[in-house]
Amino acid sequence: MNTFITGVAGFVGCNLAETLLKRGHRVAGFDNLCRGRLLNLDPVIDNPNFTFKKVDLADLDSYREALIRLHERHPISSIWHMAANSDIPAGVTDVRVDLRDTFMTTLNTLEVMKHLNIQTLAFASTSAIYGDLQGIKLIEDIGPLFPISNYGAMKLASEAIISAAVESFLERTYIFRFPNVIGTPATHGALLDFVHKLNKTPNNLMVLGDGSQQKPYLHVDELIDAMIYIYEHATERLNYFNIGADDDGVTVKFMAEQVVAIVSPGATITYGEGNKGWVGDVPRFSYSIEKLRRLGWKPTLGSAEAVRLAVRQIAAQEASK
Amino acid sequence: MNTFITGVAGFVGCNLAETLLKRGHRVAGFDNLCRGRLLNLDPVIDNPNFTFKKVDLADLDSYREALIRLHERHPISSIWHMAANSDIPAGVTDVRVDLRDTFMTTLNTLEVMKHLNIQTLAFASTSAIYGDLQGIKLIEDIGPLFPISNYGAMKLASEAIISAAVESFLERTYIFRFPNVIGTPATHGALLDFVHKLNKTPNNLMVLGDGSQQKPYLHVDELIDAMIYIYEHATERLNYFNIGADDDGVTVKFMAEQVVAIVSPGATITYGEGNKGWVGDVPRFSYSIEKLRRLGWKPTLGSAEAVRLAVRQIAAQEASK
Repeated sequence: MNTFITGVAGFVGCNLAETLLKRGHRVAGFDNLCRGRLLNLDPVIDNPNFTFKKVDLADLDSYREALIRLHERHPISSIWHMAANSDIPAGVTDVRVDLRDTFMTTLNTLEVMKHLNIQTLAFASTSAIYGDLQGIKLIEDIGPLFPISNYGAMKLASEAIISAAVESFLERTYIFRFPNVIGTPATHGALLDFVHKLNKTPNNLMVLGDGSQQKPYLHVDELIDAMIYIYEHATERLNYFNIGADDDGVTVKFMAEQVVAIVSPGATITYGEGNKGWVGDVPRFSYSIEKLRRLGWKPTLGSAEAVRLAVRQIAAQEASK
Repeated sequence: MNTFITGVAGFVGCNLAETLLKRGHRVAGFDNLCRGRLLNLDPVIDNPNFTFKKVDLADLDSYREALIRLHERHPISSIWHMAANSDIPAGVTDVRVDLRDTFMTTLNTLEVMKHLNIQTLAFASTSAIYGDLQGIKLIEDIGPLFPISNYGAMKLASEAIISAAVESFLERTYIFRFPNVIGTPATHGALLDFVHKLNKTPNNLMVLGDGSQQKPYLHVDELIDAMIYIYEHATERLNYFNIGADDDGVTVKFMAEQVVAIVSPGATITYGEGNKGWVGDVPRFSYSIEKLRRLGWKPTLGSAEAVRLAVRQIAAQEASK
């Protein structure tokens, strides 16, 4: 199996590459290294079955040319499109960030797949496509879909253009709607932010918002496991699944307390106001993973356990720098 | 009221301009004149309250510059974004057509609105965002949304990016999900196609597909009336409504027969195979306008009457050329 991963140097991409290599795949990946880091590829870069190239996927010509060369050597059987803008607040300020890195990377991936007649696509979508349907259990078939961030909008746009491609040339597609995912290598997110803040001012942690925001969190190891499970078991032409923790999540307050306990026990925590961290952030949602459970997969860690594990891993990651 | 219309020289845009002028608005509009035609503006071009400029809305810089100048003279109170690719099969062949003309025109409209602090947007969306949910009554809140054409995908992408803009700066938005709309000036569509074919070969009409495709049709006069009604009566920040005929529609066979009866009585009709006209065409759907009815509007013509009226108008339009 020759698997190609976009955004391979990112948080999810590098973990996915490592797991697929362990499972015997030959893996190749591109990344523009804007938010992804070469360092993240340390565990795989010397593996003879792994190939990396720095390519900007938003530039169709260089993307196509590089993938044609790769495909000639080792014909690609499936593409896992994990590349996207991961800095959601940056995309709120400037819509062109998510246009380019979240949407155009998808459009170009489809263009290149059509050109090379590669017909299997796995895609990292997000719970953000659902917008802020307060209080409603988010099952996959819910509507209306009115995302409240440019990131969510450009992920929904990506799903839509993939869906049109299923009608015209894609043979098999897997859309994974990610929850908040935590673990290492951490490059962004609240836990890393808290660790950084405490490393600077060990006696106090300032938290954006009032700490009441509650979200489910999944550990990245479980996310990878779920994606591969879906890939191996789902049988529709267009498969779409929420992936998430099997609970209503934990609050920002809980996360802050866990970080304090590991990184700087005894530090005080100061909260801001409001329950939205930034424009486009959904304060609270309830994510259904019933469809995935019916397919036969469920997470082994709850949100609280995933947070505890990730805090220890992130603290260790930062301490080793 | 200074109203700005994108795609003002198109089928819907020119009819909207005419109606708004009659209702006392000052109207300005841009069009790149690719599919829109100057001829369509004949009824309004000499009206002192109407301003037209040829501008490509997919080019942000020229769009912004032209709108800034317009806005300085007559501050714009609302933007009606009607511009889009109207050639759906062309968008199936090349995804860049709908990317550019259906989606980037929306994104750029939002960019320019943000820049000029214009906070009211009315947007022409489409039933195509629903994809092919066979047999399910299409209410506005239905899911999942998996469009089967690039046109539908880029309209859904437009809705999504508008929805994110509602979170960040838009004060009031009206999303109109159009059904198939017929009337004059006809620039595309099955009725015009049939008239053209019969004008070339008056004794036989060749129809793509088996004629069993069934869709609701709304006359453009009623569409304009419904849009203005929604604009004047809906009170949410984000208002979204299906607009359509209040029935399950008519078949392609019915439409072909009406055209034959008017244009070339006695001509035979030959059908092809299959019930899909082209990739991305939804063969049959049932459109709910219950939400619009609850707001207080319903069409006066059924699909069959709308088709009969439009056939007479299109036949007259073509005969006068």
